[in-house]
Amino acid sequence: MTNPHRETQKDNILIDCQDQDTLRPSKLDFSPDEQKAVYKAFSARRDIRSYLPDPVPKEILERILHAAHLAPSVDFMQPWNFIVISDRNIQNKLYQVVEKERLRASANYDDLKQDHYLRLKLEGLLQAPMTICVTNHSGRGGPHVLGRNTIPETDLMSTACAIENMWLAARVEGIAMGWISIYQKQDIRNILGIPDSVDPVALLTIGYTSHFPDIPVLERVGWAKRLDLKELVFQNQWDQKELDE
Amino acid sequence: MTNPHRETQKDNILIDCQDQDTLRPSKLDFSPDEQKAVYKAFSARRDIRSYLPDPVPKEILERILHAAHLAPSVDFMQPWNFIVISDRNIQNKLYQVVEKERLRASANYDDLKQDHYLRLKLEGLLQAPMTICVTNHSGRGGPHVLGRNTIPETDLMSTACAIENMWLAARVEGIAMGWISIYQKQDIRNILGIPDSVDPVALLTIGYTSHFPDIPVLERVGWAKRLDLKELVFQNQWDQKELDE
Repeated sequence: MTNPHRETQKDNILIDCQDQDTLRPSKLDFSPDEQKAVYKAFSARRDIRSYLPDPVPKEILERILHAAHLAPSVDFMQPWNFIVISDRNIQNKLYQVVEKERLRASANYDDLKQDHYLRLKLEGLLQAPMTICVTNHSGRGGPHVLGRNTIPETDLMSTACAIENMWLAARVEGIAMGWISIYQKQDIRNILGIPDSVDPVALLTIGYTSHFPDIPVLERVGWAKRLDLKELVFQNQWDQKELDE
Repeated sequence: MTNPHRETQKDNILIDCQDQDTLRPSKLDFSPDEQKAVYKAFSARRDIRSYLPDPVPKEILERILHAAHLAPSVDFMQPWNFIVISDRNIQNKLYQVVEKERLRASANYDDLKQDHYLRLKLEGLLQAPMTICVTNHSGRGGPHVLGRNTIPETDLMSTACAIENMWLAARVEGIAMGWISIYQKQDIRNILGIPDSVDPVALLTIGYTSHFPDIPVLERVGWAKRLDLKELVFQNQWDQKELDE
């Protein structure tokens, strides 16, 4: 084991095994109101591209980042870092490299409205008072990270879980978030001084907004529809639906 | 645009732009108690490997899957599917291919306790009344998915966000979840009949447990430490800390 964060303590694995001896389910420690609040957060979370200039209070930013850090990670490797960008000059540089990729991507769209919409989506980078670059460091856990031997991308999935926690935390704080992924990673590394071994996997614009729409904007403008969940759930085998449906 | 889910509706992009004309922040629609409930869910979520045989009620399973489906996805592509496995014969087959990879992985561990711990982690597959295989289908959105031109793995990150939603929803329902990623994808495809174009990215064991520990098991047994969040957050540039710290 070469993970520098690890210090193997002896004998306490046995404590862990004792869990299996208690055969009653754990007492439910979330009240119906608490359950509703969590489901409300899932439903109310939106990808927002329109921001007000008001700054994000420092204590709220800290709670959002703390929520990220509570995410699960493969082998507890915690592969994430967060670069909080409030320097307008750097935000402008980020916008320029994103805009360069937008122009390249727009060649794929023959609908002027879609092109217009894509432009709007990226202007959040100029409007938002703050952008957080989330990075993923595959090398953090050493060469034998448990669970990455067979599926190496589980580190990236861990970082994505951290982003989802941030998004939910921001939403309950009344803070809007948008996820921008139209950029070349090397451009972002150059601007933010990120080492080659670290991947900038998301640019998250963060700030107050005038309202959170009831349905996702991409759904509202007809870009895509929400799929029917029943079509996505199978029983025991791929493509096998429940017999009673 | 070749996404079959898309039907471009005209003229309603303009409605979207009106958001920018209202210059007051949205009214905070989460009460302090609701905020606390969401933060409590982040803190209380655990990777659990020890299960009781009690079945997961169908209505709870449906709420957990609905939470998954409310996750963000790049270009709203919703690349996920969920195979709910309650057939004991299939669960045993999954355990066998996971156990095969455990034996291969254990060659990397020279500490007997670590090897013992790894074995315990996977036995959840035999104990849990239910396992959900979450898959990711990169091809779902067609060839020009917005935001995947430059960072193709954003589809996988979307599916990871869905898994985090499931995990939080399960936790508030008193249902334990564990994420197993020690397997060859092709083995899982063979057992569950998954097409080659679809990636089985997680096996999630799900069920009741006797208790949710206060701190993550990997931290408690000394496998890894929680990193100091302050060391992971930078200001405007990689490795740049706040001046007042």
